[in-house]
Amino acid sequence: MTNNNTSLPSNHVSEQRLWNLLMDVAAYGATEKGGVNRQALSQEDVAAKTHVSRWAAERGFQCFQDDIGNLFVRREGVEPTLDPVMTGSHLDSQPTGGRFDGAYGVLAGLEVLDALNDANIQTRRPIEVVAWTNEEGSRFSPGAMGSSVFADVRDIGAVLDVTDLSGTVLKDALATTLAAVPVPQRKSGSMTPYCYLEAHIEQGPVLEERKIPIGVVSGIQGIRRLNITVTGEEAHAGTTPRRSRKDAFASTVAIISALEELTADDDDILRFTVGRCDVLPGSPNTVPGRVHFTIDLRHPDNDILRSIGDQIHTRAKEIGAPCHVEVSDISFVAPTKFDQNIMAVIGSAADRLDYSHITMPSGAGHDAMHMSNICRTGMIFIPCLRGISHNETESATAEDLAAGTRVLADTIVHFASQ
Amino acid sequence: MTNNNTSLPSNHVSEQRLWNLLMDVAAYGATEKGGVNRQALSQEDVAAKTHVSRWAAERGFQCFQDDIGNLFVRREGVEPTLDPVMTGSHLDSQPTGGRFDGAYGVLAGLEVLDALNDANIQTRRPIEVVAWTNEEGSRFSPGAMGSSVFADVRDIGAVLDVTDLSGTVLKDALATTLAAVPVPQRKSGSMTPYCYLEAHIEQGPVLEERKIPIGVVSGIQGIRRLNITVTGEEAHAGTTPRRSRKDAFASTVAIISALEELTADDDDILRFTVGRCDVLPGSPNTVPGRVHFTIDLRHPDNDILRSIGDQIHTRAKEIGAPCHVEVSDISFVAPTKFDQNIMAVIGSAADRLDYSHITMPSGAGHDAMHMSNICRTGMIFIPCLRGISHNETESATAEDLAAGTRVLADTIVHFASQ
Repeated sequence: MTNNNTSLPSNHVSEQRLWNLLMDVAAYGATEKGGVNRQALSQEDVAAKTHVSRWAAERGFQCFQDDIGNLFVRREGVEPTLDPVMTGSHLDSQPTGGRFDGAYGVLAGLEVLDALNDANIQTRRPIEVVAWTNEEGSRFSPGAMGSSVFADVRDIGAVLDVTDLSGTVLKDALATTLAAVPVPQRKSGSMTPYCYLEAHIEQGPVLEERKIPIGVVSGIQGIRRLNITVTGEEAHAGTTPRRSRKDAFASTVAIISALEELTADDDDILRFTVGRCDVLPGSPNTVPGRVHFTIDLRHPDNDILRSIGDQIHTRAKEIGAPCHVEVSDISFVAPTKFDQNIMAVIGSAADRLDYSHITMPSGAGHDAMHMSNICRTGMIFIPCLRGISHNETESATAEDLAAGTRVLADTIVHFASQ
Repeated sequence: MTNNNTSLPSNHVSEQRLWNLLMDVAAYGATEKGGVNRQALSQEDVAAKTHVSRWAAERGFQCFQDDIGNLFVRREGVEPTLDPVMTGSHLDSQPTGGRFDGAYGVLAGLEVLDALNDANIQTRRPIEVVAWTNEEGSRFSPGAMGSSVFADVRDIGAVLDVTDLSGTVLKDALATTLAAVPVPQRKSGSMTPYCYLEAHIEQGPVLEERKIPIGVVSGIQGIRRLNITVTGEEAHAGTTPRRSRKDAFASTVAIISALEELTADDDDILRFTVGRCDVLPGSPNTVPGRVHFTIDLRHPDNDILRSIGDQIHTRAKEIGAPCHVEVSDISFVAPTKFDQNIMAVIGSAADRLDYSHITMPSGAGHDAMHMSNICRTGMIFIPCLRGISHNETESATAEDLAAGTRVLADTIVHFASQ
């Protein structure tokens, strides 16, 4: 499937070498079920970062950490003073995570550096591969921490005192990591990338179902979260006729049915999820007096997200009668739009390599979300087995992993030549 | 509103005397919020029973307890060897119960005895007023214990080792009660009533809403309980398109909507309640993988209960696709039908007293349910405030309480004369 043009770096990407590197790193925090438990700033995370730093040292690449523990591997450019093209993702995982979420984006970046060495390509701009600290947010909240601090979206001072469930303070875990990974510090804020590219498994089923190896990511959909409380009146399930009831759960079912209709989308882009629903008092022979439920609403278009969310406020109250319905907005993260030019370059690279591709939004958040605030940003998705992620059974094929890396390599070189 | 025929015992029922007796007994276990905490075989329960035994002694009525602690007050008949007409209910309450649930049926019976004394009426058959042990079942399970043992529905040996939450064994609490209430024992099983009548607050809103003082109870509706488990697949709320989901809660909402339609009843007799619903894993941004919910289905007609319950099995599985739906029957208590002749006599007594009345099933279970297995049985309902019961705010008016007692008095004398 690869092009015979040996001057293209994609032609020097090695599927086997990439796979070996992925499996080497997957050993840090490996679980019995074939997944990874490598939470942010843990011993396992330090071990993975140390592996990367050794990898860089063996090849003579410079390697740095910044104040929040983001790790950078730099392949120098012909003009070292130019802003670097940056690529990467994260090495931390969920407690029962998979081998590819995050790690793929970092290690694909390293494979690109190897391919450039093999191809003897000198780029005008430097290239930096980054492993962002604590993308998952499962041990220390919030997630996408390293990229948000790097992009000045969040002040480092606001996260240093965060603790994990065992009471460990983030600044202590961070100090341990910085001391343990054998690379020099680089002052945070000393550099802005020319552009940022991130390769990632899709974490959804679209590419696999459609047998398409490359997703050109158009942006990250926005998320609007709402909480709804329905208040009725507890009553005896045996003695209370249905017309006399204020059944909070019956009203909830009616509300959710109406909202399913309101949010129906033939294109299947709008995502509506009721993930939590607490029915009180929760006794089989008592008519429920109160229900709390959550709504997770996602769409790549900010206006649609705003409009549908506002309609949810109105509809829920209408449908919920005779119960009392309160709707509150919990959060509203606007959609991220990736750079059109980067999307076009990714698409051209895939075309040249004869990989079919589609343009698609990202359903999940990524470090690229924050990077898009400071530089032109794009993402490349590859298929993963049944769309499963945040799960030890997460899987992707060596072929797809290499395909994404080839597209990444040619895209990086395109921008590093500017 | 009362008839001027002074030969009718109803004419001698005293609204004030009945109210005073109700309030005297409500003092045992009185709560700050105006309710009662008088759980079965507690000190408070003993105190209430002792009050009744003193009441009987003051009037020269015989008083007994049987092996399970049921308390009987007997007004002798002209022919003492005939089976007695029995009336009563229970003195135990829910932990946060009201002043009228149960106590009303017992104390209305005592008021009838006072009225008969005042009217100088000697009945052919003896009349016995009973306070059944542990109707509520909130401290010791199961409820309606005393009446079920009396009616041989349950063997006393099967309940003696039951414990309450604090570890107290029922047989010890029973022995304490039997020793503390100062009345002789009567051998259990030594007597079968001629018929059984029970006055009770409705515990539902029908009579109050329709401004009708007397409900002629046609029976106790049957209860069929089902548990449903819907199994889908957990998925990321952001990355998983809706058509690829197996959302266990979305399927649950569809199932319950379909069952609401299936169980719709213009006459509002069929009762359908989903009182408990557990949505797992219960994370706002995870598509639910599993839901458990309960169905409480009630109807006075056994065939309808059977047919609708069976249709629920089928419909739930049809509607739940693509999720996997399991439906299990938890219990099926057949409806109780009360005696047609007793219902007619209650209706006539109400007519003679100019009380409007309707025939209605009981939504809740009562001791009369078990008594109907061994003798002709009937119940009289009176309104309670907003249908609220099992609640400290439970309330009923002195006027309604007296009206029910008048109907009870004339009905008792009707059968005690046979």
